[in-house]
Amino acid sequence: MARTASLSGFPEWLPEERMVELHVLDTLRRVFELHGFSSIETRAVETVGQLLRKGEIDKEVYGLSRLQDDEGAPAPDGATSHRSDPHALALHFDLTVPFARYVVENAGYLAFPFRRYQIQKVWRGERPQEGRAREFTQADIDIVGDGNLPFRYDVEIALVIAEALSALPIPDFLLRINNRKLAEGFYDGIGLTDTAGVLRSIDKLEKIGAAKVAELLRSELGATVEQAQLALKLASIRTGDTSFVAQVRALGVSNELLEEGLAELEQVIAAAVQRAPGKVVADLSIARGLDYYTGTVVETVLVGHEQLGSICSGGRYDALASKGNRTFPGVGLSIGVTRLVSRILSQDLAKATRSVPTAVLVALSSDDSWGAAQDVAAELRGRGIATEVAVKAEKFGKQIKFADRRGIPFVWFTDDEGKHQVKDIRSGEQVDADPASWAPAAEDLHVRILKA
Amino acid sequence: MARTASLSGFPEWLPEERMVELHVLDTLRRVFELHGFSSIETRAVETVGQLLRKGEIDKEVYGLSRLQDDEGAPAPDGATSHRSDPHALALHFDLTVPFARYVVENAGYLAFPFRRYQIQKVWRGERPQEGRAREFTQADIDIVGDGNLPFRYDVEIALVIAEALSALPIPDFLLRINNRKLAEGFYDGIGLTDTAGVLRSIDKLEKIGAAKVAELLRSELGATVEQAQLALKLASIRTGDTSFVAQVRALGVSNELLEEGLAELEQVIAAAVQRAPGKVVADLSIARGLDYYTGTVVETVLVGHEQLGSICSGGRYDALASKGNRTFPGVGLSIGVTRLVSRILSQDLAKATRSVPTAVLVALSSDDSWGAAQDVAAELRGRGIATEVAVKAEKFGKQIKFADRRGIPFVWFTDDEGKHQVKDIRSGEQVDADPASWAPAAEDLHVRILKA
Repeated sequence: MARTASLSGFPEWLPEERMVELHVLDTLRRVFELHGFSSIETRAVETVGQLLRKGEIDKEVYGLSRLQDDEGAPAPDGATSHRSDPHALALHFDLTVPFARYVVENAGYLAFPFRRYQIQKVWRGERPQEGRAREFTQADIDIVGDGNLPFRYDVEIALVIAEALSALPIPDFLLRINNRKLAEGFYDGIGLTDTAGVLRSIDKLEKIGAAKVAELLRSELGATVEQAQLALKLASIRTGDTSFVAQVRALGVSNELLEEGLAELEQVIAAAVQRAPGKVVADLSIARGLDYYTGTVVETVLVGHEQLGSICSGGRYDALASKGNRTFPGVGLSIGVTRLVSRILSQDLAKATRSVPTAVLVALSSDDSWGAAQDVAAELRGRGIATEVAVKAEKFGKQIKFADRRGIPFVWFTDDEGKHQVKDIRSGEQVDADPASWAPAAEDLHVRILKA
Repeated sequence: MARTASLSGFPEWLPEERMVELHVLDTLRRVFELHGFSSIETRAVETVGQLLRKGEIDKEVYGLSRLQDDEGAPAPDGATSHRSDPHALALHFDLTVPFARYVVENAGYLAFPFRRYQIQKVWRGERPQEGRAREFTQADIDIVGDGNLPFRYDVEIALVIAEALSALPIPDFLLRINNRKLAEGFYDGIGLTDTAGVLRSIDKLEKIGAAKVAELLRSELGATVEQAQLALKLASIRTGDTSFVAQVRALGVSNELLEEGLAELEQVIAAAVQRAPGKVVADLSIARGLDYYTGTVVETVLVGHEQLGSICSGGRYDALASKGNRTFPGVGLSIGVTRLVSRILSQDLAKATRSVPTAVLVALSSDDSWGAAQDVAAELRGRGIATEVAVKAEKFGKQIKFADRRGIPFVWFTDDEGKHQVKDIRSGEQVDADPASWAPAAEDLHVRILKA
C-alpha cells in the first residue's frame, strides 16, 4: 500500500491487494452459508424518506440527482430538493435500513425466521480518516422473525460471527457484549429513569473518561453522586465468563428488566465460553450510542489495534421492521470489511502467494504453435489449472521472463515432436509432463492468502 | 418473479433468485480466473470531469451531493453545480471509463499486458424498460498493453467470452463480430470519407431498415445511390466462417485499411470456427454506435431473445487510456449480467435445486440438547455440509415441517442414548448416521442451478 487513493475516502486496491479482499469475502460467505444464511443484495439506492424514517439521522448521506436534470434552469424545488422531498433518491449508508425495507416488501415470499447475509458497499459523506472511508464494504448477517424471535438466535449469531472472524487472516479479536435490558433495568432500578440519556453518556466513556461521564450524569440527567457512581460501577464490569452476574448482583440493585437482561447475557457468555473460548467477553460498558437496539449489543476490537474502532457491531432489534400490526424482530451483526482489509494491507498482516490467478504460461515454440498451445491450455483449465498462452514466439528466455514478471510460477514447453515439459521457474526444475495428467503441487494450484 | 421492483429500474432478487445470480457471477469468475484474469474493483464514484472526458456523453449520469449540504441556503453554485464543476462526484455508468483511470493511476504497479476482470454495479438514469435497468451489474474482461497490444489478444478475448457464456444456464448465444478497420477502409475505398458518419447511419440498420439508412447516407453524407448500395451490401454480409472475406472482395473495393481489417477479422473467425463452433459469426452490420473502438467490435445476442438487445459487447480501443506520451491500447468485452439474470428469471430458464444453502436441520429432542446439537452441526459443517440447529424442542413433526417450509432436505435426530439418525424429508427415508462420516448425496451437498 504505497499508494494513496486518488479520491480521499474512496480506497481502491491493486490486484494483489484485491486478492486479500476476495479471500476475506469468500471466507465470510463460506462460513455464513455453512450456517444456512442466504445471500441477498438490495439496491444501492433508497428514497430519502426511507433513510430518514427513524427521524434524526447522524450519518452523512449522499443524495442523487441526474446530471441531465441540471441543464438549464434549476429544478423547481431548487438545491434543497433532497431533504425536503422524501421521494428523492440517496445512497444507502448501511445495510440494516435497506434490509428492513426488503423484509417488509417481500414478507410474503420469505420463510421466517429468515436468515440472510448481505455483502455490499455503503456510502457515507464523512470526513475520511484511518479506518473510516466514504465508500466501504460491509458484511452483515441477520436473523429476522415474524412476530417473535427466540433469544437463542442471539447466542447463535454471536457464535457464527466468532467462527467467521476466526477464519480470517487477522490478529486476535474480542467480541464485547452487553445487553440493553440489563443496563436500562439497572438504571431504572437506581432511579435514573431517562435510561436513553444515561446510555448516551455511558457511550462516551472511552472517549472522555469516567470523571467526565459522572459529571454529565449529574449535570444533564440530575443523577446524585451515588447514582452516577453506581452507573459507572456497572460499566466497569468486564468478565470473560459468567461471573459478571455475581458482580452485578453485588451492586444490590433489583429490577425485573435487569434480571431479564442478566439471564440473556449469561446465556450468550456461557455458550461462548464453551464454543468460542477467549473470543467473547461480557463488557457492561458497551452502549452502542443512538442505535435502536433493545437487548443484546455487540462491539468487536482487534487486539492490539483497538484504536481502529469496532470491526463488527450490532445487536437485537425488537422491531427491525413493521408492516401494519405485524412486527419483525431481528438480531444481526455487521463486519466492517474495508476497515479490516485496509488494516491487513497497511500492516502486511497477510499476503497472496502470487500476484495473478495464473499457474501456468504455455510458451510458444513458433508463432504457428498458438493453436496447439491453446489445446494444452484448455486441457489444463479443464482440470482447474489457471493457464495463459503466450502471444508471440519470442526466445524462451524472454517468455520465461514474461511469466516471472507477471508472477506465474510454471512455464510449459512443447517441442516440434509434441513432447511436453514444464518448468518451475522459481526452482528452475524442468520435468516431462502430460497435459492430461500433470498438476502443480496443491499449494501452487490456487493463489492462497497467508497470514504474516 | 411475481413481484415488481418497488423502485422502477432498480431490480432486487428474492433469495432463490439471488442464488441464480450468484451462480452466474461465480461461473464467470471461475472462467475468467482460469484464463489468468485478475479481479479488481474501482470505486463507484468518479469525478464528473473524468466521466465527461470524452466530450459528448450519451449516458444519463447520476450526480452526488451530500444531503447535509442541502440544509439552509443553496450551494453557492446552485443547482447546476454538477455539470459545471468537473470535481463534483457522480456514479460511474460503465466499467471502462473507471478502468482506464485505474490503469493510468496505477501503471507503475501493474505488469503489462494487464488482464483484469471487474464485476460491479453501474448506474444510468435512463427510462427503465425490459432489459434496461437504472442499476445493473456488468462483468467486464479487458487486456491492456503498455504502448502496444498484439492482435492475438482480440482472438483470445472472444474465445474466453464464448467459453464463459457457454458455461452459463442460458439459451444459445451468438457473438456477432465486425472490425472497424474493415468498415472504415471500405467506406474510404468507395469515396465516403466521413466514415464515422457512415458508421452512425449503419448502426441504425436494425432499428430503421435498409431503405431509410440508404436515405440517410444520401441526404446526410452526400452518398451517391451506388455508394449507399455498396455500404449496405457490405453491412448485409454475415457468415459463420471466413467466407466473408471472399464476399467482401467480390464487391471490388481496394483499400489498405480494409485489407488490414479483413485479415484481423479472418483471424478471429478462423479461431472461433475451430474453438467455439457455432458461437461466433462475422457480421458486417455491427457498428457499435458512438463508442470509440478502433478495430474489433462485438455484440452478442441470445438466440430466440434477440429483442433483449446485446448481452455482451465491446471491442478494441487503440488508446483505452493515455498518460503523457504513453498510451495503453486495450481489448475487452462486457457482459450485461443483470440483463441476463432478469431474462433467466422471468422466463424460468434456470432454477435453484433448493431455496436455502442449508442441507441439514439438526432437531432438538429437548431444549437442553441445543449444545449437543451444535456439536453435531459443527462436525457436519467441518466437512462442508451446511447445517442449521433448531432453536426449540417442538414436536418432531413440527421441526420437520419447519425444515420443509425452509426447503432444507435433511433432518437430523439424536435420541437420549446419543444414537443418531438422519431423515430425507422428501422421500421419508430415515437411516442411522454418524456425524463424523455421514454426507448427503453429492447432488444435495450444495445448491445447484439447473437449466430448465
